[in-house]
Amino acid sequence: MAFLKVVPLEKALEVIDSFPLKPEIETVLLSEALGRVLAEDVTSPINVPPFDRATVDGYAVRAEDTFMASESEPVKLKVVGEINAGDTPAVELKPGESVYISTGAPLPKNANAVIQFEDVEGEGDEVVIYKPAYPGLGVMKAGADIPKGKILLKRGTRLTFKETALLSAVGFSEVKVFRKPRVAVISTGNEVVLPGEELKPGQIYDINGRAITDAVRELGGEALFLGIARDDRESLKELIEKGIECCDIVILSGGASGGIRDLTSSIIEELGEVKVHGIAIQPGKPTIIGLINGKPVFGLPGYPTSCLTNFTLLVAPLLRKLIGREGEVRKVKKRLAHKVFSVKGRRQFLPVRVEGGKAVPILKGSGAVTSFIDADGFTEVPENTEILEAEEEVEVTFFG
Amino acid sequence: MAFLKVVPLEKALEVIDSFPLKPEIETVLLSEALGRVLAEDVTSPINVPPFDRATVDGYAVRAEDTFMASESEPVKLKVVGEINAGDTPAVELKPGESVYISTGAPLPKNANAVIQFEDVEGEGDEVVIYKPAYPGLGVMKAGADIPKGKILLKRGTRLTFKETALLSAVGFSEVKVFRKPRVAVISTGNEVVLPGEELKPGQIYDINGRAITDAVRELGGEALFLGIARDDRESLKELIEKGIECCDIVILSGGASGGIRDLTSSIIEELGEVKVHGIAIQPGKPTIIGLINGKPVFGLPGYPTSCLTNFTLLVAPLLRKLIGREGEVRKVKKRLAHKVFSVKGRRQFLPVRVEGGKAVPILKGSGAVTSFIDADGFTEVPENTEILEAEEEVEVTFFG
Repeated sequence: MAFLKVVPLEKALEVIDSFPLKPEIETVLLSEALGRVLAEDVTSPINVPPFDRATVDGYAVRAEDTFMASESEPVKLKVVGEINAGDTPAVELKPGESVYISTGAPLPKNANAVIQFEDVEGEGDEVVIYKPAYPGLGVMKAGADIPKGKILLKRGTRLTFKETALLSAVGFSEVKVFRKPRVAVISTGNEVVLPGEELKPGQIYDINGRAITDAVRELGGEALFLGIARDDRESLKELIEKGIECCDIVILSGGASGGIRDLTSSIIEELGEVKVHGIAIQPGKPTIIGLINGKPVFGLPGYPTSCLTNFTLLVAPLLRKLIGREGEVRKVKKRLAHKVFSVKGRRQFLPVRVEGGKAVPILKGSGAVTSFIDADGFTEVPENTEILEAEEEVEVTFFG
Repeated sequence: MAFLKVVPLEKALEVIDSFPLKPEIETVLLSEALGRVLAEDVTSPINVPPFDRATVDGYAVRAEDTFMASESEPVKLKVVGEINAGDTPAVELKPGESVYISTGAPLPKNANAVIQFEDVEGEGDEVVIYKPAYPGLGVMKAGADIPKGKILLKRGTRLTFKETALLSAVGFSEVKVFRKPRVAVISTGNEVVLPGEELKPGQIYDINGRAITDAVRELGGEALFLGIARDDRESLKELIEKGIECCDIVILSGGASGGIRDLTSSIIEELGEVKVHGIAIQPGKPTIIGLINGKPVFGLPGYPTSCLTNFTLLVAPLLRKLIGREGEVRKVKKRLAHKVFSVKGRRQFLPVRVEGGKAVPILKGSGAVTSFIDADGFTEVPENTEILEAEEEVEVTFFG
């Protein structure tokens, strides 16, 4: 195993960026597309509405036939047919003719206005019109809502119900979206057991497995929790190999011991290559980044807040790139709620909660589960800063 | 069919509130709980950590044995064992003794501090200590993070990865959540066809089916799109019966014609009871609310924006109640971007977009698909208001 020295965060991000993973595209049914991310710009293949459409119930007319109509001298038109929504209009209006039409129905040829029932009097085969109709009255023109060829949605759009409805409106039953990256999640440590199991003396419940699995899912990835590897080479190697086999990315979170880190990096060296072993940030020193068969393997710190911070800094941007959500803003500027002391010479990421418009530092220590529960994200304390004053502006990066 | 007159919105909401639907609870695996809503307060059944835990690699000691230690007169302690993370500590410290301990391991009996390697010198079976350790140094006490019995999460909490991780930390493998209400969605109209089908003259693609189905899913319900009913009694009755059979709630969205509304209310009367037929709001006059076998049936307007507005006003609050998300705030106060004219005597819900901190009215008419795509929600223009001035403060209700 090559010994690699601790690198700056920027270097680690460069390494990750150079990995041979590319966003992939798949076609899904529109009925299954909610929450997915568009992999291409979508252009409308049709006019909406596809035809000149009545927007009221009434009589379709040639507007010019009504121009002379008045209360005292109404115009009478012959009613030559009826068109309902869904009908194919077979009628063609000649001068002096009209058609009984319902909302949503296509206008007959030569008609250019619909006068609603309330404004006319129908008498058998005749309709009596008391005021002029202008061309376009009671009509939505073909393409008035969405013209054919209009770009409707941009690549990278996350599909909410509004976008799926829009795609439905222009007739798409399938849509091209970014394939969800598959992420294998492995917890490690002799002391860690799965929730639901009995806790023996010296044991604690796994936290990172659940946190990372569900954080990946929230990001829009597919996550597969493979279980807990013990601090022995065979157990760990087996799960890493399984992860490489089934997934695009493997994420391990360390147990408390340093031994597991050595094991992890030795196994990665055996199966592939360790690219980063330690990042010059706090927390993050124990972080390992490797590549096996072209697939990234991340070994994240064991403390939940540290694990999640490193996940957010290193893995989440990669997932966002693969899923077409690169542009997403996950940062906000806030003023610090109170003074914070840091250690000079250490680039620190401090958990904070956004509350009352301020960034409130959570100072429980990375060992506390509750610090990541109470926090919304973290803020950076630069290497040469010892004190961040209250009211100082900081940038908060949200977890995930 | 009893003729029911148009009622105020408040009356319609009272009717819905009186329906015999109650939130139901189900137990799901924690691994499937992401995004679900807690149906009960959750109390921690254990201490976290469950035992006094070393937070550094070093030597576990009785702090009192080190109180006299100094650079010039170090204290020597006997090393009587080793405890690693996951070990059950069998050792018990006697005065003058210490134990080699790794991060995450449980402290042996009588130990109350852990001095990290960097601060001592290990010499065979002995460790040399140069400064006093205080009780608690390098130790996280049992329950220091989460004490047993603490209320961790409240009923009604939507589970993000942070909450599922917290539940994992205290050992839950299952969790009680609100059952997702099952909603049958039916589109109606002779002119409406499913996306993917060929559009014949006079036909348009279905929008509301997709919009309502996916809006229900975003809200946290289960939605089943049953298809499009034609304007004939048998087709419509069959789908309504199917919806009542398989789901808790049935939502129809009207085609353009008035005929379908009469059919819908007549079928509801046959199978159950029409409770509301028309609401004194714009849009919303054609809305029908009925009850069949204790299950609500909503007949919403056909125009997408009207349909979605009525869904938001009437159905979404019911879904939120059933799913335990009643308290959720879906409104925001904003100033109007520009003047809006309304009709006196009409209580109007106007689509608006929130942009640049303002509420921007979308004035395309309810017939336009794009008006609900461009809008984030709507604002109410009261019955006796003709003009809303620019900069006037309005309340925006978000769609869904």
